Parts: sequence; structure tokens; C-alpha cells
Amino acid sequence: MSRLPAPPVVRRIVEAAVAEDLGGGDLTTDALMPPDGPIRAVVEARAAGVICGGRIAGEVFEVIDPSVVTRLPLADGSRVERGSVVLDLEGPPASILGGERTALNFLQHLSGIATLAARYVAAVEGTGAVIVDTRKTAPGLRALQKYAVATGGARNHRTSAGDGILIKDNHISVLGAGGAALSDIVTRARSAGRHSVRVEVEVEDLDQLQQALMGAADVIMLDNMDVGTMREAVAMAGGSAVLEASGGVDLDNVRAIAETGVDFISVGALTHSAPALDMSLRVL
Amino acid sequence: MSRLPAPPVVRRIVEAAVAEDLGGGDLTTDALMPPDGPIRAVVEARAAGVICGGRIAGEVFEVIDPSVVTRLPLADGSRVERGSVVLDLEGPPASILGGERTALNFLQHLSGIATLAARYVAAVEGTGAVIVDTRKTAPGLRALQKYAVATGGARNHRTSAGDGILIKDNHISVLGAGGAALSDIVTRARSAGRHSVRVEVEVEDLDQLQQALMGAADVIMLDNMDVGTMREAVAMAGGSAVLEASGGVDLDNVRAIAETGVDFISVGALTHSAPALDMSLRVL
Amino acid sequence: MSRLPAPPVVRRIVEAAVAEDLGGGDLTTDALMPPDGPIRAVVEARAAGVICGGRIAGEVFEVIDPSVVTRLPLADGSRVERGSVVLDLEGPPASILGGERTALNFLQHLSGIATLAARYVAAVEGTGAVIVDTRKTAPGLRALQKYAVATGGARNHRTSAGDGILIKDNHISVLGAGGAALSDIVTRARSAGRHSVRVEVEVEDLDQLQQALMGAADVIMLDNMDVGTMREAVAMAGGSAVLEASGGVDLDNVRAIAETGVDFISVGALTHSAPALDMSLRVL
Amino acid sequence: MSRLPAPPVVRRIVEAAVAEDLGGGDLTTDALMPPDGPIRAVVEARAAGVICGGRIAGEVFEVIDPSVVTRLPLADGSRVERGSVVLDLEGPPASILGGERTALNFLQHLSGIATLAARYVAAVEGTGAVIVDTRKTAPGLRALQKYAVATGGARNHRTSAGDGILIKDNHISVLGAGGAALSDIVTRARSAGRHSVRVEVEVEDLDQLQQALMGAADVIMLDNMDVGTMREAVAMAGGSAVLEASGGVDLDNVRAIAETGVDFISVGALTHSAPALDMSLRVL
Amino acid sequence: MSRLPAPPVVRRIVEAAVAEDLGGGDLTTDALMPPDGPIRAVVEARAAGVICGGRIAGEVFEVIDPSVVTRLPLADGSRVERGSVVLDLEGPPASILGGERTALNFLQHLSGIATLAARYVAAVEGTGAVIVDTRKTAPGLRALQKYAVATGGARNHRTSAGDGILIKDNHISVLGAGGAALSDIVTRARSAGRHSVRVEVEVEDLDQLQQALMGAADVIMLDNMDVGTMREAVAMAGGSAVLEASGGVDLDNVRAIAETGVDFISVGALTHSAPALDMSLRVL
Amino acid sequence: MSRLPAPPVVRRIVEAAVAEDLGGGDLTTDALMPPDGPIRAVVEARAAGVICGGRIAGEVFEVIDPSVVTRLPLADGSRVERGSVVLDLEGPPASILGGERTALNFLQHLSGIATLAARYVAAVEGTGAVIVDTRKTAPGLRALQKYAVATGGARNHRTSAGDGILIKDNHISVLGAGGAALSDIVTRARSAGRHSVRVEVEVEDLDQLQQALMGAADVIMLDNMDVGTMREAVAMAGGSAVLEASGGVDLDNVRAIAETGVDFISVGALTHSAPALDMSLRVL
Repeated sequence: MSRLPAPPVVRRIVEAAVAEDLGGGDLTTDALMPPDGPIRAVVEARAAGVICGGRIAGEVFEVIDPSVVTRLPLADGSRVERGSVVLDLEGPPASILGGERTALNFLQHLSGIATLAARYVAAVEGTGAVIVDTRKTAPGLRALQKYAVATGGARNHRTSAGDGILIKDNHISVLGAGGAALSDIVTRARSAGRHSVRVEVEVEDLDQLQQALMGAADVIMLDNMDVGTMREAVAMAGGSAVLEASGGVDLDNVRAIAETGVDFISVGALTHSAPALDMSLRVL
Repeated sequence: MSRLPAPPVVRRIVEAAVAEDLGGGDLTTDALMPPDGPIRAVVEARAAGVICGGRIAGEVFEVIDPSVVTRLPLADGSRVERGSVVLDLEGPPASILGGERTALNFLQHLSGIATLAARYVAAVEGTGAVIVDTRKTAPGLRALQKYAVATGGARNHRTSAGDGILIKDNHISVLGAGGAALSDIVTRARSAGRHSVRVEVEVEDLDQLQQALMGAADVIMLDNMDVGTMREAVAMAGGSAVLEASGGVDLDNVRAIAETGVDFISVGALTHSAPALDMSLRVL
Repeated sequence: MSRLPAPPVVRRIVEAAVAEDLGGGDLTTDALMPPDGPIRAVVEARAAGVICGGRIAGEVFEVIDPSVVTRLPLADGSRVERGSVVLDLEGPPASILGGERTALNFLQHLSGIATLAARYVAAVEGTGAVIVDTRKTAPGLRALQKYAVATGGARNHRTSAGDGILIKDNHISVLGAGGAALSDIVTRARSAGRHSVRVEVEVEDLDQLQQALMGAADVIMLDNMDVGTMREAVAMAGGSAVLEASGGVDLDNVRAIAETGVDFISVGALTHSAPALDMSLRVL
Repeated sequence: MSRLPAPPVVRRIVEAAVAEDLGGGDLTTDALMPPDGPIRAVVEARAAGVICGGRIAGEVFEVIDPSVVTRLPLADGSRVERGSVVLDLEGPPASILGGERTALNFLQHLSGIATLAARYVAAVEGTGAVIVDTRKTAPGLRALQKYAVATGGARNHRTSAGDGILIKDNHISVLGAGGAALSDIVTRARSAGRHSVRVEVEVEDLDQLQQALMGAADVIMLDNMDVGTMREAVAMAGGSAVLEASGGVDLDNVRAIAETGVDFISVGALTHSAPALDMSLRVL
Repeated sequence: MSRLPAPPVVRRIVEAAVAEDLGGGDLTTDALMPPDGPIRAVVEARAAGVICGGRIAGEVFEVIDPSVVTRLPLADGSRVERGSVVLDLEGPPASILGGERTALNFLQHLSGIATLAARYVAAVEGTGAVIVDTRKTAPGLRALQKYAVATGGARNHRTSAGDGILIKDNHISVLGAGGAALSDIVTRARSAGRHSVRVEVEVEDLDQLQQALMGAADVIMLDNMDVGTMREAVAMAGGSAVLEASGGVDLDNVRAIAETGVDFISVGALTHSAPALDMSLRVL
Repeated sequence: MSRLPAPPVVRRIVEAAVAEDLGGGDLTTDALMPPDGPIRAVVEARAAGVICGGRIAGEVFEVIDPSVVTRLPLADGSRVERGSVVLDLEGPPASILGGERTALNFLQHLSGIATLAARYVAAVEGTGAVIVDTRKTAPGLRALQKYAVATGGARNHRTSAGDGILIKDNHISVLGAGGAALSDIVTRARSAGRHSVRVEVEVEDLDQLQQALMGAADVIMLDNMDVGTMREAVAMAGGSAVLEASGGVDLDNVRAIAETGVDFISVGALTHSAPALDMSLRVL
């Protein structure tokens, strides 16, 4: 169950995008478009995938011209084929053609993420492993990108450094230089950290895993382990900690990783490298 | 010759990104990091490519803590190999680890675009064709993405609907419904449009090209034409208009397109589908 | 055909203006105005001119109190006489009197610009010359001021440094110090510049004009030339470049300039020195 | 003694102006300017007047590029002749030419206001009357415009509806419709209004003046009265209230108005109709 | 008669508050709440007091989800008992529970201020003294806090340093170091200060009071005087200046202060130390 | 170990506060203050407590005038007595007196919170119970208020609805209406919720506690229980969940609550009802 970010957050992003494209006017429309209308137009998918961003695209047109009527034939998260109608529009030609690029940019980017997320989810179907995202996101777009991940059926990891404790290699490196054992670091985080969040720690081998378990970490991230080691890790943990695989995950190896028995698999590519889903606007 | 966007534009994006990640604090650092320091750390490329965003990454740390000293061993646009040091940092551990994710997100995203742009530029080397980007960008990040494209050696097309006239299929469709011929539409745009910009028109076949030439279009976009037709188009135009190929361009076909003699090739994928260039921060 | 700037751009300016005047309350209204109502009021022109800003003035009242009903008897661009009703209002007295000053400030300023633009346009009627504005605008108000220019029947030149190439004396001075000839500078700009915009160059005499023509400049600005020289320039160019007269233009000499045969005449005074058109609000 | 508005207020206006002009890049500079430098340039007045905005112009360059060195040979409020150097700059050519237009727009606009204010002040010299501005300002620029008025030697009236009580004809009209006498309205404002501000009331004839005096108004605005009536008003008031002349004031009649003995003369034209003071930037 | 601050001011504060709480999502609601609905809920007072902020709380829900229907059974300024219904809501559970905390934070804070203000007003009832607030407010919330003070029946002093002249001990100390007498300082402020505001001066003893009266101060603040001295001050002033008591005022001594005959009593605690009025939201 | 919120977050709040007080100028300073200087001044505590906000107060002066030199003799979190110097300033009189009110507002508000937090922490000293805050904060100031709580020695609970799962009575009420048992709700939250956060549930009696334990809640909030029941709850939980007491906590009963053995005690009053710590600025 995914929800759009809070409306003022969305509105600010949409208004910034509209200003970015139309803040200096729309010279083509100004030179040519008749003020009269209305026209009808549709946005169509040009490739199969999972759509995301329909209401945001609608908000683009609402921001430009409240007289544009938008209809969303499909909810976010729906699968589409090449040719499926994603958005149906009626309004003045200047408003529809003026908003075309901005609306498509949201739709293509977010649908690209949702589509890739859905592919990862499908790849691990039946294994019990859950696909999650990371904080490797496009600056300023994290809330929307995480919404797209959820729309595609995956789940969200932390949305910021303020909603979870994740002790990574660099933290350990700084603290270890002072002589602290990993188990002690985890224990310290459990007592000094905010009591509303879990303590997750990244480990690179089974020795570190042992330490993390001794420190009673809530979640343990298995960083860049091979599948064999991961399987041993799952056995060692024996359910006493949540295990998350991370690093070097792709569509080719994700199922094998899932079958090791890890609980979560985090995939940075969902947000930092998803290709856009091709769409186009067509005047009827 | 590419320049960073105007400093207040960059600063606003950087501050928003920092607030996005650290606005609710950094729980891991708060729980564990010693206030003392300083530590040294480097950002290293983990794959070969063209780097972009070094000064922006530096600005992330400056926004978080002006006491962090950053050194950029390589200018934006430099080629790197796996292991190349991209950024060198010295400062309090909380500040460096707190800014790690945000700085990397800028670097990886922009370097990914610059790297892809450079690959397209290399693919057409010697042909005379120039690779340009489009307005198919991530909302809110257009200025930075276009800077990355230029860093990679390609050139920029319009940065907004306000800095050029580009008559696309949908404009023609609306105006044509009123009976206007394409040549007349172009002529109208030339006289009604802003005199500081060129008039570009998208054509789908040689008939439309003929009309565009009759209308004395400054630039003609050949949309989704096959290579054979493009070659005919180049012959027909005979240098009387700038020709830009667009649609369905990929690294496999871009050289063949360039060899048709077109002047520009626009590639949406540069900004909407470039995968991130992998990098990581390592505490020394 | 002029269009209002993109709605979020207008809304931000209107909200800032309302906050500027009413952010600390309205002491007179707070002390005296009855909460009941409604009252009716009209905004009347107190001098003849061309009105501009009716919808923006309406938006001022909408921002202050959505219950105020506004009616615009005349579209932007209409000519008014002293006493013409420009805006008709009905709503609570506190809301109407609270918004009076801000709404009038928009209307008077923009109508002043539209009126001056219309006077210049009228002065060159029948000559074929087109009056255009410049970037000499009040900081923060450029989009609205350019809309007012268009409302008055003139046309817009560049809205920012990002939507056209205009090589001015200072550029030439910097580059010339390095030994570059003007014709080479223009040629360089044509090949290095963005292909969606024209290359315009400012020349101060016929020698420079000759160089600009050799460089195949798209547009040539004749800077501060006397009318006789301009006429020679028109002959020299012979239609091979668009010519724009600039500098020292006023209502007394603009027709003579137009009659030299130049294509465009740019007038900074349209935006930097237009006196306000007097208007007042009257409670009925 | 005038002071610049609070720095974050100024900074926000300057950054918005820079983004307005350079947010989409500077195509001319991008195409042509060498990255090396530095160059030296000066801003010179091209007409006599009072300069205002030197530090704001300096801030424009600081926002664009902190490496630009600016020197202000003359303080705001200084008189200049045609050719006087107002600002001295040294830095990279791209930064200086990039900021030229925005810096000049501030300088020309604010110096235009200061110059006009100084002319009004000079016109009433020796009479004891004080020239003040109004809230008839360009939206978003009020703080700067009022600073320019003070720089020119005049004084400021209210900066917003929240810093004074001014009962105008429309307030009286609304309240009078309910049967209230003007003297009662003033009395009510004195008791219900904020005790830190004065109560000013606008009167149109001597009857209303009598009422305003009965209500013990602190300040009385004589609206559009002829000089003879004003003189009677001064006699009637006999020093028991501050008198402010308003409406229809111009440079031709302002001294006659001042000689009636009024304390203040408010002039809307200072901010809504001051022509720009011509200036230009010249590369040395 | 108190009015809400200008709508864009309120809207910005409400949106910032919503983003502060919900910008990173609402994890509880996301995990558990059914999308269906609607539910009904009420906000109830859990202690007696004066309510303030009903429309602002309503705006919180409108910002989150315009489909939520809010009803305000009581106007701001109404007295409530424990159990009184302050707000009645109907809408989707995710929207109502998502907005609960933010809406309550506004209501509890502002009602706390209104309640405290009403207690001070009641304490001086019948004495003629008026309770006013100060600029000792929570940063960013001054406009709302001052509205709450007025809602509770007290009056507002200056809302910023720009809407009144108040010469305090530190001003006198700086100027006095230069040898200026207090009476001269006041006289100077009367002539150099803005003519739309009163001149208030803080005095600490009867000598200073004498000086302030000699300077013809409009308002004199009696700072931290004991009740006996205040009474003498009232006698000395004899109605020739407005007197305001300030410093060390609490609910125990405010009536005694009021009975000295001072006109105003300013109470910083109204805004800097008012405890919240307890309220809760209950799903029906 | 508490850290200031991210610098751009702090800067935005400080600039807004400065604009709020000085956006319309500082009429007293404008009328009276000499431009020369500098002067020295100190901020002194006028009551005993824990100071917080020193660097933020310093930032107020830096925003107003970078030439003001500030020195912080005591770190945030230090205990002060009446008369202790908290901040030492040197700079132009207009800048120091202009920033006085805004700087004091931050210092008094945040020190008030830190002082109250320290009193609660002292009251439970030696019991093992930890005092935490809530989301009952002043809109827009949450990050600073939570910093003040930590400065006083207490700890922070969630900073937003996005960094923890807390199932409250209203959630249970909505879900229970659909027939869900509390234990099932907790179980559902554990599986559907974000894996980086803990699941906390509010219970009102021992039956609900039993259910929460069955659902394996990570944290259980004992809402408004009497001390005897709490003791039973501690025994029942037997360490299998973290227990947090909440509701009706004050300085009189907090130690008794702590002695029941609960792990955390949350106190809304820390942020919604802390009185300001009195301070003043004195020119030397």
C-alpha cells in the first residue's frame, strides 16, 4: 500500500518543474497556438511496464490551467502495454501542449522506476525475500522516487538519515580506529540510539556477522557477499536478526540471492539507474 | 566549454538535497560519532567514466560544515578509471559521513550522464555530427543535467520552452486541423515568433521536409526516419537548413545516423536513462 | 498574442506582494472595518491608456479572500478613457480595502507599460518596423513587464541571457583585445552557440556592420546610429540580416528610425521608465 | 540617515534577479568568453543624478562569483555627473559580463528613484516641508524603493498596511454608509487602534478637516486640495495636528504646496513613475 | 476585533508544519490504515480555556486532503470547558490521523496563548488598563501568536521593529554615552522618526519620566517600577502621555498595576511562556 | 551527545526570524543610532538554568551584519546562574540593537526547554529511566526544540511521523472497528512496516499490554496508567519489550513513575509548555 507524499511536498516539486520549463514562456505556443479550443489528447505508453505518476501528471496540468480536465483510466501500479492510454486530457491547446513535456517527464521517470521495481519483485516471487530501495536517489526527488518504488511493489528502506540507524563500513572504520569492537559499537548504538528505530549494521564477512549478532543488532546488512557466504550467514543468524543483502545485485543474480533465505534485498539501481518508460502525448 | 549553472540555482538544489537527507538529523552519527577529528576520506570511482559534479559535491560538504576541506584532484570532464580519486576530504567525522550519501548522489548521477554523453560523442567522432540533449530531464534537475551533458562533450538543446521555437507533430496536428499547410505554419512562426530564436520544425517524411524547406525553417528535425530516408533528406536540404535527427537513437545506430550528414543528433536517453556511475567514499 | 506567465510564477509574485503589504496586518482595517458586508467597489482609470493586469489584480483579491467576487469588464490590452471601469468587486469591506493598494500597484504599473508600448507601436504604424523590449527590467518583475509590453502591442526580445545570443560591445572588447576580428567572433558564435537561437551582434558603425554581415550574423543591432547612417546600413544589409535599431530611441524620433527600413526597434524605456497609469478604487 | 533593508531580504531579491536573468545560462558568454581573465570594468553614469544601489550591484557580482572584486568609489546618495564612475570591477570576463544587466537594472532603477526624490527635496528646500513616499511601489521591490527614496534625501511613509493607521476616503465611505461621523471614526481609531502608531485621516475639504481636528487625529492628509484651501487648512489646524499634502503633486507645484506651511508632502511618483538613471558598464 | 494573518502567510506556516511532520511519510498509517473510509472524529478540549486556531487546524486537513470535511462548532475566542468539541472532522482515516498531531499542535499552542491572555484581561477588568503583548515571540510564529493574543481579548503591541519607535535602555545607553539627554533623544526621535508612528520611550525612574515628558514622548514605558512609583508616575504625567507598565508582570500583581492608572500593561509571558491548552482528537 | 540541525535548516529559520522582525526596517535605530561604533554588549541570564541556542543567536547577528564579532563563553548545555554571561558581542550599535530581540527570542525559548528538560532528567537521576520528548512541538520549530531537549540531557522520540511506527488509540479504534485484535494489529505492523524502524504501540491497561506482548511489539507505551499498574506492567513485560510511560507526567510524579522500572518517560510539556528562561542584552 503506497501513498503519494504529502500534498505540499508534491505541489512544490510540480510547481518547480513547471517553472523550470515554462518560467520563460512557451515560444512555440505563443507564436502559433490559437487561444480557442478545447482539444482532446491522450498520453500513451510506448512500451510495456508499470505506470506511476498519473496524479502528478494531472497536477502539472492543473497548475498550468485549472480548466484542463484530466481523466486517469488506470491507477498507479497498473501494468500497461505499448499503446495503453495512461492519461486522457481535454482543454485549451496552449495549456495541453505547454504541459506536455513536464507531465511526460514525471510519468516516464516514475514509471521507469516502478517498472524496474516490479521486475525485481517478480524475479524473487515466492522466495519470501523483500526488495527494498536505498537512499541512492536523484537529489530533490527522493520522496517521489520512493513512492514509485512502492508503486512497483517493492518496499522502502530509510527515506533519510533521520529515520533509522545504519552502521556502515565507514562508521566502523572511524570507530574501529579508536579500538572499538564491532559488537561493542552495535551495543552502544542500541543504547545511545533513538528507541523508535532499529539498529542495522553492515558486515562484510562472517566474523563481522558474529560480532553483529553478539551486539544484538536488529538488522544486519550482508554487504557484497557471494551467495555461498550469504547462505552460511542465514544459518548462523538463525532468525535472531533480520538479514538484508546489499551490493552488486542485478536482475541476473537477485533470485539466487533471495533463495539464500535473506529477508530483504536492497537495490540501489531502482532509483539511481532505472531507464525511463517511453510514453508520448497524442492530440486526437 | 561548459559552465556550472548560476550559483544561487546550484545552492538551492544543494541545500534542498542536504535538507532532504539530513533535515531530520543523522541518527547513526548522532548515536556513535565522536565530535573530535578530523579524519581524511576520499571519493573513488568504482568504474571507468567521465566525472561530473566535483564542485557540487564539494558544496554539499561546505553547506554541512564549512570546516571540511575539500580538494578536487580532477576537473569535471576528466576521464577516470576504477579506483581514481575524485574528491579528497578532511574534516570532522560527523560532517564527512553525514554528507557522504548526498555528495555521492550528485556525483554518481551527473557522472553517469557525462559518461553516457561522452560515449555518444565518441561514437560519432569525425563525422561532423553534434550530439545534443533534450528537455526529457528529471524534474528540478534540468540545469545540472544539461551541465553534465556538456561536461561529457555533447551540446545542449533548449533548456526550456522559452528559448527556442520547436514546432512538433502535436502543434502541426492542432493547426492542421484548422487547414494550415506546414509551410505556412513555419512561415507564420518565422514572422510571429521571437526574433532572437531560430524556428525548428519536426518532420516525419520527405513531403513534410519539402514543406519545411518552403517555409524556410532554420532547423528541421527529422523524426524517427530510417537512415536511408535521412540521407535523402540531407540531399534535399542541400545545406539550406540545419538538420537534426531525433527519435530511436541508440549507441548502436548513432554512427550510421551521423554518417548521413545530419548536423545534430538529439538523444533523450542522455538525461532520462543514463545509469549512475558507481563511486564510493572511503575513510583513510 | 500575449499570454500571462505560467501560473505558479504569477502566484508567487502575487503572494509576495500581498505579504509585503499585509504580512504585518492592516491596522486601519483592523481598527475600524465591520466584519459584515459585502460592499461593491470598482477600479476606474483616471487617465486614458491601455489596461494590463486585470487578472493579476483579481488574483490579489483571490489570495486575500476567495469570497471576493471579481469581474473584469475589459480584457487586458483594451483602451480605456478616464473613468472607464477596469475591475468590478464585491465582497467583505476588510478584504476589498485590504487588497486595494496591492491590486492597484499591479494594475498601474503594468498598464503604464502597456500604454507606453502602445504609443510606440502607434508611432511606427505602417512602417513595417516592430517595437521590441529589452532586459532592462525591474528585478523580479521581468515576466510580468514583458507580458505588459506584449499587451500593448509590441513584441518581446530575450527574456533572459539564456534565450538568445547577443554579442555586445563589451564582448567584442574582451575578445578583440585578444585580436579577434568581429566577423570571426560572429562566425565562432554561429558554430559554438546553441543551434536553437539566433546570433545577434551589436555594431556601432558601417565598418562593423560589414564585418557582421561577413560573419553571417542572423540579427544585427545598430547601436546609437543616426538616422542617415541607419539608412545606409539598411541598404548595405540588403535583406541578408535582420536589423534592429537600438539606443537613444524616444517617441520623437522613433518614426524616423522606423522609416529607415530597420526591422526591429528596441526600446529600454518601455520597461525601465514607463510612468504608472493612474487608477483608483471607489466604493459604491 | 537611510539603511539598506535587512540582509536576508536584500539577498533574496538579488538571488531572484540573478536567477531570473541567468537561470537558463548565458548563451553569449558560454559561446564566446574565455575562462581566463581577469578583466577590469567600470560602471559609469550617463546622466547626472544621485546614485543608489552600489552595494546591491556589488552583491549581484558576489552572488554570481565571489572572486569578482568590487570597489565602490562613491557612497549611495552621492551626486554624479555624466561619466562618473559608480562601480569598479575586476574579475573573470564571464562573471562580469554575466552580471552586467542585473547589476545595472538595480543601479538604474534605484538611482532613478533617488534622483527624482532629490529633485523634489531640492524644490522645497528651506520651506520646512518634508517630502515622503507612499505605498505605490513596484510589487516585491518596496523595501529597496523606499531605501532609494531615503537615499535621495526624502523620508518614508508607511512601508506596509501594518505600520500606521491611515483612514482614507474609502474607509470613510464604508463607515459613513453606516452613519458614522468623521470625528467619531477618528476617535474610534484612536481608541481601538494600536497604541504604537499614529492615526492619520484623509480629508477632502475644510469641513472634513474640522471633523478630523475634533476627533484629535494625529496626522491629517489634505487630499487634492488647491493651494489656497491648503493655506486655510494650515491656519485652521494651528499646529494641533501634523498636516500632509497629497495628490496631484508634481515638480511644478510642489514648492507652492510646501509654502502653504504643510508639514509633509507625499509623492507617489517617487516610486511608481521615476525614470531610470542611465548607466553603462565599460570594459577597460 | 482580531483577524487571521494574511492567507499566504498562514498557508506558508501550515504547509511548513505539514511538511515538517509528514514530509517523510507517515509510517504508522502507511503500514496499517485502510484506504477506505470515511471516519468521523472530533477534537475535544481537555481543560477549560479560550480556543484559538480552529480555522488553522482546518487548513491543516485541507492541505493534507481536500476531501476531509471540517466543521467548527465554535468561533475562535470562545470559552470551552473540558470535553467541549472544538473541531468536527469527516474523511479518510489516513488523512485524519495523518493530520492529527499537526492540527493539535496549532490548536494547543494558540489556545494556550489565548487562554492566558484572557486570564490577564479578566484580572484587570474594570480598571481601564489594556493588556498588550510584546515581540518576545517564538521565531516564525509571531503573526499567529499575536492573533492568539487578540483572540484572548488582549491587544497587540508592535509586530516588528518596523512599526513603532520604542527607545529602550540600550538605545539610551548608547546615545547617552555620547552625552545626549533623554529629553533630547526623544525630541530627536520625534523629528527624525517616521511620522506615521508614535514615539515610545522606556524610563526606569521618575527623573527619566520627567525627561520623557519634556521631550513630549507619545508613549512612556514604565520599566520594572514598583506600584507606588507607578502611581506617582501616573500623577506626574497627568494624561499628557500614554503610560505603559512593563516588566515583572504576573497574574498576582497585574491588577495592582492596573489600578495605578496606567493605560497599558505589556506582558511578555503571553507569548513566550504560555502553557499549551490540552486537547485531543477522538475517532467516533 | 546532541548536534544542531543541518545548517541550511537552521539558516532558513534564522533568516525567517530576522525578516519577521526587521523586514520592515528598525524604526528606532533608523531614527537614532549613529552609524559609527563599535560598541560592546553582553547577553546575561536573569535566572538560573541550562543555556541553549548560543550559536543560533550568534547566527542571528551574522545574518544581520557579518562584521559583528560574537563570542560564546559557554557551550550549549552549560548551567548558568542569574548574571552569567551567555554571549559577548562587539559591533556597530545598529546591528547589535537590531538583532537583540530576535537573538534573545531564540535563546530564551530554547534555554527554557533545555532547563525544563534538565529538571526532569535530574528528577529521575539514578533510576535508569530516560526522559524523552514528543511531537507536541511549536509548528516550524521542531528541529530546534528537539535540539534543546537533547541539550538539556533528555533524549528525542520521533522527529516526524516518518521515523517510527507508533500505533495509538485512534489507530486501534479505526482498525478495531473492523474487528482486528490488538495483537494482530501489532503483528501486521511488524510485517508491513518499514524494517528500519521499531513498532511501538500504546496500551491503556494490562489486557492491552498482554496483547501487545503477544504481537511482539518492540516498544509499548503505557498511556496514563497509575503507578501501581505501571509496576505490574513492568513485571508482566519482563524485559521482552521496551516500556515507555506517557500521559499526565509532571515534575511531582515523574520520579515515582521512573521507579516503576519503565525504560522511557515521554513528556509533552518539554516542548509545548516550557516557560522561557529570562535573559537580557546589556550594552557595556
